[in-house]
Amino acid sequence: MSKKQVLIDATQYSNWSEQIFRQMNKAGLSAVCVTICYHENFRETVANISTWNRRFTDFPEFLTLCRSSQDILLAVKEGRTGIIYALQNCSAIEDDINLVEILHRLGVRVMQLTYNNQSLLASGCYEESDSGITRFGKQVISEMNRMGMIIDMSHSAEKSTLQAMDYSRRPLAITHANPADWHPSIRSKSRAVLRKLGETKGMLGLSLYPYHLKGGSNCTLQEFCKMVANVVDTVGIDHIGIGSDLCQNQPDEVVNWMRNGRWSRSRDFGEGTASNPGFPPQPIWFQNNEDFPRLRDGLIEIGFSEKDTQMILGENWLRFFSEGFEPEGVTSEKKSSQHI
Amino acid sequence: MSKKQVLIDATQYSNWSEQIFRQMNKAGLSAVCVTICYHENFRETVANISTWNRRFTDFPEFLTLCRSSQDILLAVKEGRTGIIYALQNCSAIEDDINLVEILHRLGVRVMQLTYNNQSLLASGCYEESDSGITRFGKQVISEMNRMGMIIDMSHSAEKSTLQAMDYSRRPLAITHANPADWHPSIRSKSRAVLRKLGETKGMLGLSLYPYHLKGGSNCTLQEFCKMVANVVDTVGIDHIGIGSDLCQNQPDEVVNWMRNGRWSRSRDFGEGTASNPGFPPQPIWFQNNEDFPRLRDGLIEIGFSEKDTQMILGENWLRFFSEGFEPEGVTSEKKSSQHI
Repeated sequence: MSKKQVLIDATQYSNWSEQIFRQMNKAGLSAVCVTICYHENFRETVANISTWNRRFTDFPEFLTLCRSSQDILLAVKEGRTGIIYALQNCSAIEDDINLVEILHRLGVRVMQLTYNNQSLLASGCYEESDSGITRFGKQVISEMNRMGMIIDMSHSAEKSTLQAMDYSRRPLAITHANPADWHPSIRSKSRAVLRKLGETKGMLGLSLYPYHLKGGSNCTLQEFCKMVANVVDTVGIDHIGIGSDLCQNQPDEVVNWMRNGRWSRSRDFGEGTASNPGFPPQPIWFQNNEDFPRLRDGLIEIGFSEKDTQMILGENWLRFFSEGFEPEGVTSEKKSSQHI
Repeated sequence: MSKKQVLIDATQYSNWSEQIFRQMNKAGLSAVCVTICYHENFRETVANISTWNRRFTDFPEFLTLCRSSQDILLAVKEGRTGIIYALQNCSAIEDDINLVEILHRLGVRVMQLTYNNQSLLASGCYEESDSGITRFGKQVISEMNRMGMIIDMSHSAEKSTLQAMDYSRRPLAITHANPADWHPSIRSKSRAVLRKLGETKGMLGLSLYPYHLKGGSNCTLQEFCKMVANVVDTVGIDHIGIGSDLCQNQPDEVVNWMRNGRWSRSRDFGEGTASNPGFPPQPIWFQNNEDFPRLRDGLIEIGFSEKDTQMILGENWLRFFSEGFEPEGVTSEKKSSQHI
C-alpha cells in the first residue's frame, strides 16, 4: 500500500509497544485514535496523556501526535503514524464543564458521552432506562462543539444517541459499532440511528471487535465486507470508516476494568460470560495492524471501487476530522496559529 | 423546653459560627444533620469533614459528633447538640462503590442519590427525563443498606424516588421537602411518593426553606402546621419529622454554588430568577435555631398532642436513625464495639 494513501483507524486500545508501533507503520496507518480513558477521572486521564506524550519522545521514528487534519497529512508525508487522543468516557471531565477546554488543549479530540453505564451526560447502552441527554449533557455538547472535540456515541443508548444528534450543532461520530440487525449485540446500532447519523453528516466507524461481529471470532472477511456494503446503503458512502476497537496484547484484567471500573461490588461480564470472561480472540484475518491491507483487498473483492475503498479506509475520517477538530468559527487561515 | 426532650433537625447548611452553635444549644437541639457536600468530589468532601472535625475540638461545650443513636442520647444527656454528617449529593463517592464504606467510617450517615441534576445513581428533580435508578445506583443502594447509611431522595425525580424505595432493603428518607399539592415547587413531592414513603416505613422531614413554603417567606406558622397535620394523614404520624433546610447567614454565592456547581457555562437560577437570584428571606417565625420551640407551640395550637408533637420534633428521627445508622446484621450487643 502506497505511503501516500490515507489509512485511519478511529478506535484502538492496545497494550502499546514498539512491536505494535512497527506494525502500524508497516501497514501504512496514517492515524489511529487511541483510547486515553475508560473510567479514569481527570487526574488519571492526565497521567495517561503524559504516558502517551513520552512515547513521542521515545518512538519519534514511528509516531507523532495529531491535533488537526494538517498534522495527519504531515504524518502521511513523513511516513509516521499519527496519534489522536480519544476518550471512551466523560469520566475525565468529572462534573466540570471547563475541563472540556482543558482536555482539548492537552490534545483530546474525541470524547464519548457515555461508556455502557449512565454518565452525568447521557445513558449508556447497558442501562435499562435511557435518560436521554441530561442538563449537564446539553452544556457539554455545546462546549465540545465550541472547542472542536468530536462527540462519540458508540457506547450510548438509543434515545441518548438520537438526542445528541439533535442538540449538537456539528456532526457527531459513532467511532466503533456495527448494525444491530447484522449482529444483535447490545452495543450494536439500530437502522434509525445509522440513518440519522448519515443524514446529519456524521461518521460510523465499523468495528472488528469479535463481540460486534456476526459469528464472533469466526466471522469471515467476506461477511464483514458484505456488511460494510449493506451499511453504506443506509449511512452513505461519505460517512463510513473503520474503528477496529483492536485491543492487541491486552491481558484479561483490562477487559475486566473496562466492564467494571469501580462501580460494582459484584463482577459484570459485559459481552462475555462467567465461564468466558476474557477478551475474545480476533478473527484470523484481523489479528493486528499489519492485517489492515486485507480490508482493502476484501472491499475491492466484493465490488467496491478503488476510490470508495480509500474513502472507507481513511479519506472519510480525514475529511470529518478536518471539519471537526477545529474550534467553531476558526477559518483555515487561522488554523495554523492554533497549534503553535 | 426540657433538655431531656429530643429535638432533631434532619437538614441544615448554615454559615457555621459560635453564634449559631449557641443558638442550637439554647433551643435544645439534640441533633442536626449538617450538609457536608453539594457538588464536592471525594477529596473536597474529606476536607469539609476535616473542617467539621476541628469544630468538635474548638467548641466542645456545644457540639459532639453523632455516629449512632446512642451518641444522640449522650448528647441530650450532656446538653450538647449532636452533629450528624449528611451528603446532599453522591458526588463525594465519585464513581467508586468502595467510597460508601470509607465515608461511613468517616462518620457520614446520610447521602442523597442526586442533587437536582442527573447523577451516576439516579435522576434529580430538575431533569426533563427520569432515568430511574442506574446500574451503579442499584449497587450503591445495596452498599448503603449494608453499611448503615441512610438513602435520602429529597432532590430526586419521582420515578427514581419510587424505584429507590423498591430496591432498598431498608427504609429511606426524604429529609427536607413538602407536598407538591400544598406548594408546587419542582422540589415538592407527590402524594404517591409520600404514601409509599410511609408504607415502607421511611421518614419525611418537612422543610422550612421559603421556596418550599406556600406563600414563600410570607407563609404563616399556622399554615405550615396545618400542612403538617395534612401530611400526617398521608404518611403516618410515625414517619414525619423536620428537615428545616436552614441556610443561616449564608452569602448568595453559596446558593449559586448549590444551583450551578461546575456543570454549567450559563447561570442557572433554580427556584430563584435572574432578578431575584439570592437566598429568600426566612419566615419571621423561623429565622434561626432559637425559633425551633415555636414549631412546638404551633403544632400544639392546631391540635397535635404533646406526644405527637414530640414524635414530629425529634422522637421519630431518633427511632429512624437508631435503626438506620447501624450496619446490616449488627445486633445491639455488637453496636458499642462498632464505635470504638
